[in-house]
Amino acid sequence: MESLKIAIVGSGAVGCHYGGLLHRAGHEVHFLLRGDLDAVRAKGIHLRGPEGDVHLYPVRAAGNPNEIGPCDLVIISLKATSNADLPKLVPPLLRENTRLLTLQNGLGNEEFLAGHFGEDRVMGGICFVTLNRVEPGVVRNFNPGYIKVGEPFGNPGDRAEETAALFTDAGVRCRVASSLMEARWRKLCWNIPFNGLAIAGGGIDTAAILADDGLSGLARELMEETRAVAASLGHAIEDEFLDKQISQTLPMGPYKPSSLIDYLEGREIEIEAIWGEAWRTARRQEVETPRLGMLYRLIQSLARSRG
Amino acid sequence: MESLKIAIVGSGAVGCHYGGLLHRAGHEVHFLLRGDLDAVRAKGIHLRGPEGDVHLYPVRAAGNPNEIGPCDLVIISLKATSNADLPKLVPPLLRENTRLLTLQNGLGNEEFLAGHFGEDRVMGGICFVTLNRVEPGVVRNFNPGYIKVGEPFGNPGDRAEETAALFTDAGVRCRVASSLMEARWRKLCWNIPFNGLAIAGGGIDTAAILADDGLSGLARELMEETRAVAASLGHAIEDEFLDKQISQTLPMGPYKPSSLIDYLEGREIEIEAIWGEAWRTARRQEVETPRLGMLYRLIQSLARSRG
Repeated sequence: MESLKIAIVGSGAVGCHYGGLLHRAGHEVHFLLRGDLDAVRAKGIHLRGPEGDVHLYPVRAAGNPNEIGPCDLVIISLKATSNADLPKLVPPLLRENTRLLTLQNGLGNEEFLAGHFGEDRVMGGICFVTLNRVEPGVVRNFNPGYIKVGEPFGNPGDRAEETAALFTDAGVRCRVASSLMEARWRKLCWNIPFNGLAIAGGGIDTAAILADDGLSGLARELMEETRAVAASLGHAIEDEFLDKQISQTLPMGPYKPSSLIDYLEGREIEIEAIWGEAWRTARRQEVETPRLGMLYRLIQSLARSRG
Repeated sequence: MESLKIAIVGSGAVGCHYGGLLHRAGHEVHFLLRGDLDAVRAKGIHLRGPEGDVHLYPVRAAGNPNEIGPCDLVIISLKATSNADLPKLVPPLLRENTRLLTLQNGLGNEEFLAGHFGEDRVMGGICFVTLNRVEPGVVRNFNPGYIKVGEPFGNPGDRAEETAALFTDAGVRCRVASSLMEARWRKLCWNIPFNGLAIAGGGIDTAAILADDGLSGLARELMEETRAVAASLGHAIEDEFLDKQISQTLPMGPYKPSSLIDYLEGREIEIEAIWGEAWRTARRQEVETPRLGMLYRLIQSLARSRG
């Protein structure tokens, strides 16, 4: 495969992990950073995972998109709460045919990018993986996971397959999603309960959620509500998938979902992309989701009162 | 009215407030205390309220029920989480015909007392009042409020009227509840949402709950769920009553419900008496209460993870 020029916009856990693996695979990867810029320039990127550690040094780290210039592929891995920065950050990275791949969480990101940069450029990817940014440029990976990529606006052509091959060649399991939106709702079946209960339950990890019958029952009920919204949109999610969300979370042990870490460290939480958009969709579709609505409101309140 | 010998078992906010007013009215009131004993012996009881302050000194304060001996009336104002202490604390206070009046919050207290001391002795009272224990023996009262007393086991006779007169003569508005259990469910229409959201929303007061559309909507939804359980038991609660729970809470300003204070100060919360019993009743009655169930589980988790 030819070497691509790739910009990683937002180099937290997801950006460093996948950008690092693409860098290792020989692509010209530029990390666009803010707070972590100096640390990554000085120490590179460390990926710590169950299959061993990877240290990448030096890496191309930039504090300004003009230092990077136009790319073949721009991967958006910024937190959705910072989307308002993208209209300023992305244009210097674009030429004709530059693809924009959002690996962000939740709902609404493809639409945001399409609104600003055109539907034709925009692809979506969903990371089924458990990553924690331990410190600047240092990412811990709890399981190999996989990515699903797809065409949110039904663009024809081979881009999704090419993108999947790009990741596969870099050692990342990657599949093409026949329906990206369905895949997003599947991921929400995990994020809505586990990220949510971790925060609303008092700052607890996934092991604590699953160890308590009340909370693990509640996690399942939140999954059912999420599935009902997905079903109203035509995305059928089977029982076994929900079962797997529990059974595959058990061996993760005391994993802290990313939103919990954001909450505990006083950073903004992706409330709207995860719970807010899902709940508004439920309202539009007239699907009853009392627990989702309650979780959304409580997390808003918790984020506010955290000060 | 003749002077009665009255023991107040549990001298937190409710016990000090009502016991103090009965003391002022000339009854022989004995406060049974634990942690606050020395302070109340040394400084008496201060009642601070919208109608002025009352300082009672000296008051009869005991650390052991044997110092008090048999009474005409025993008022139980211990937190429901300490009910397990009552089989030890109450017997020295009893003679034939001693009445036991529980002014505790929530569900299950009358049944507990009846199981240990016999249905015949047991009366129930519900305090519609906003009291905070500011420090040992010092209680702040945010509004005059009232008590409803009644016969939880349908005992015939004039005891409820006599008890209401006892309080009325002491300056406390008190009515006889035709159905004590209905009155308990009415009170839960306030306690379930406001005590619960104050904790689960991140340690917020009633003003913060009502200032946010999401949370105040959620408070109303929790009231509706509570009302539905009450209705399944034959207790009809009208819309206007729910409206009043909101409209009468607004002027309280930044009031911290007692469970929130317990939570913030690391004391046990009356989880089972308020949310647990209500939720179990809903399950028995097959009434859907998703938000109540969720609140119950979240508060359990918050209390656990508070450490």
